[in-house]
Amino acid sequence: MRVYNFSAGPSAISSEVLKKARDEFLDFAGTGMSVTEISHRDKAFEAVVKETESLVRELLRVPEDYCVIFVQGGASTQFAAVPLNLMRNGKADYIVTGNFAKKAWQEGLIYGDAVKIGDSSDKLYSYIPDVDKLEYTEGADYVHITSNNTIFGSRYSKYPNCKAPLVADMSSEIFSRNTDVSKFGVIYAGAQKNLAPAGLTIVIAKRSLIQEPLKICPTMLKWKVQDENGSLYNTPPAFPIYMAGLVLKELKEKGGVEAIQQINEYKAKLLYDFIDGSALYKNCVEPEFRSIMNVPFVTGNAELDAKFISEAKQAGLVSLKGHRLVGGMRASIYNAMPVEGVKALINFMKKFETENK
Amino acid sequence: MRVYNFSAGPSAISSEVLKKARDEFLDFAGTGMSVTEISHRDKAFEAVVKETESLVRELLRVPEDYCVIFVQGGASTQFAAVPLNLMRNGKADYIVTGNFAKKAWQEGLIYGDAVKIGDSSDKLYSYIPDVDKLEYTEGADYVHITSNNTIFGSRYSKYPNCKAPLVADMSSEIFSRNTDVSKFGVIYAGAQKNLAPAGLTIVIAKRSLIQEPLKICPTMLKWKVQDENGSLYNTPPAFPIYMAGLVLKELKEKGGVEAIQQINEYKAKLLYDFIDGSALYKNCVEPEFRSIMNVPFVTGNAELDAKFISEAKQAGLVSLKGHRLVGGMRASIYNAMPVEGVKALINFMKKFETENK
Repeated sequence: MRVYNFSAGPSAISSEVLKKARDEFLDFAGTGMSVTEISHRDKAFEAVVKETESLVRELLRVPEDYCVIFVQGGASTQFAAVPLNLMRNGKADYIVTGNFAKKAWQEGLIYGDAVKIGDSSDKLYSYIPDVDKLEYTEGADYVHITSNNTIFGSRYSKYPNCKAPLVADMSSEIFSRNTDVSKFGVIYAGAQKNLAPAGLTIVIAKRSLIQEPLKICPTMLKWKVQDENGSLYNTPPAFPIYMAGLVLKELKEKGGVEAIQQINEYKAKLLYDFIDGSALYKNCVEPEFRSIMNVPFVTGNAELDAKFISEAKQAGLVSLKGHRLVGGMRASIYNAMPVEGVKALINFMKKFETENK
Repeated sequence: MRVYNFSAGPSAISSEVLKKARDEFLDFAGTGMSVTEISHRDKAFEAVVKETESLVRELLRVPEDYCVIFVQGGASTQFAAVPLNLMRNGKADYIVTGNFAKKAWQEGLIYGDAVKIGDSSDKLYSYIPDVDKLEYTEGADYVHITSNNTIFGSRYSKYPNCKAPLVADMSSEIFSRNTDVSKFGVIYAGAQKNLAPAGLTIVIAKRSLIQEPLKICPTMLKWKVQDENGSLYNTPPAFPIYMAGLVLKELKEKGGVEAIQQINEYKAKLLYDFIDGSALYKNCVEPEFRSIMNVPFVTGNAELDAKFISEAKQAGLVSLKGHRLVGGMRASIYNAMPVEGVKALINFMKKFETENK
């Protein structure tokens, strides 16, 4: 029996995509080989890379002067790649709105003057600082944000309007809502939430910004090198690229980002409305900044939380345990989580609330 | 119809492993989730990581004071990770015996005094320099070798007996022949030849050597950090780790590295003997240094080579095109290539030779 998987990442992939991958697992595109064993220089596989790139471009309306590259190492590797590719003047601004935003900032400190210009840790990252009131550093190489905070469940409702190029880690929300890519210098994202199995990272960067990486930048982390080689500088993470292609094809068929955004907002509203109306559950994020991807909630009683998680699992609602930094529960309701999954969760929450009054 | 896949990497995976992965692709270990979507913090997946690590340790007899970590980015990323983790005195020796050995050396130059103490480019990398006659640099942080050269088809018949720790890129031969891990400071390998689909890199390192990475080392490239976190510092490349587990379980069942080495030597002997006895085909590597994994051969006529590759493909023998730096053909006969595949290739070669006299 397939369960509803609320994991924050790696996370649910649509059953249709999984079935397609399974059905052609031993014979990819009539090659007589699995996509997991075909040479990355084979024309059949090169076509996958090209098609996947072109789907990314189409679905996010990526401007022509931006590259779209597929790399490895997760967003955590990009925390270093960002300064190593961009920090030519030795300073950059960081807005610290969660755990990964903080890690990105700390990694920036290795390579230069990473200035923390905003910080919402005073209220356990339950809001986003007012980006219009921050003091941006003159001459900064970039301003780094984490657009959606997986752990704390917050997200930007508007983006900084800064002089320096805006760099965003969009790991947990890419392809979930409309994004004007032209407002960003660089967008990067680990694929394991809305795009593909773990092991793939996507980087979208304005080409004019990435021409002079720092000398100490490992060749493999140079976006310019990856761009010039069409993501085939070395052997790419072939299977997740292929899966990303399947996921994006399905997204396109379903109406693209605009269509999925409506569904995502509907799913999130169902869940937040229920939580806000309930006497047992609580979400601590300021409403304006509530993520439509990651919905943490608590009962306020750690024992009851544990009971909830265990009984939910029995009911086929899995990976609802909150991150250890927050406790309680977290429902990650990425693109692949169907409305029925959210409704099943709400029904379970109702039942649990009644039983545990 | 399954073909015989002679690709240099990504490369053939055993049909049994592929079938097992396919059969449980939608429901991994009874979790109701695909292994491609399960949280890396789920106990069922953590067990996979632990079991795969322990299979690596068992099959290669890894000493207890060595770590075994699973990372991303391919050997090319490790070309930077090696100096970033080890080059504390700013100098290291490199033996350049092929294309990737050269790239590793060039990457070393970014971070310090990377001394090329051996070089076999004078004869198109068709031999390995005599390691007993090289001048090793006093006080070098390490000596780097590429133990098997995928492109040119050579390999070390004995290893340097040097004072500095020996670091080896074993991408294209790991698990194919007996290796005394204790003779090395660090062994690393991209998985996409003998171990798993692309997207996974394995690093085996003596713990005492890796405690002080350079300050400029990206956190994700610090072996120490990966070791301390059991390869779960961030989201790991879950699917290839799972596949590596399946591949290694099968290897263990078949008698381990000793058993597969015998088969590999037998396959290689069949092919080299046929080539050496033929009037049409030629392998240019000095016999002592011939790889048992990658067997390049040429007819000496580029048009005939192209015809060979095309007709072989029609006969279900694919990815036989040699690397552009060498031309001609290359048969990569990794662990997953059955003896029958090599025999089918030889039969085709015979037939082609007769038809093209």
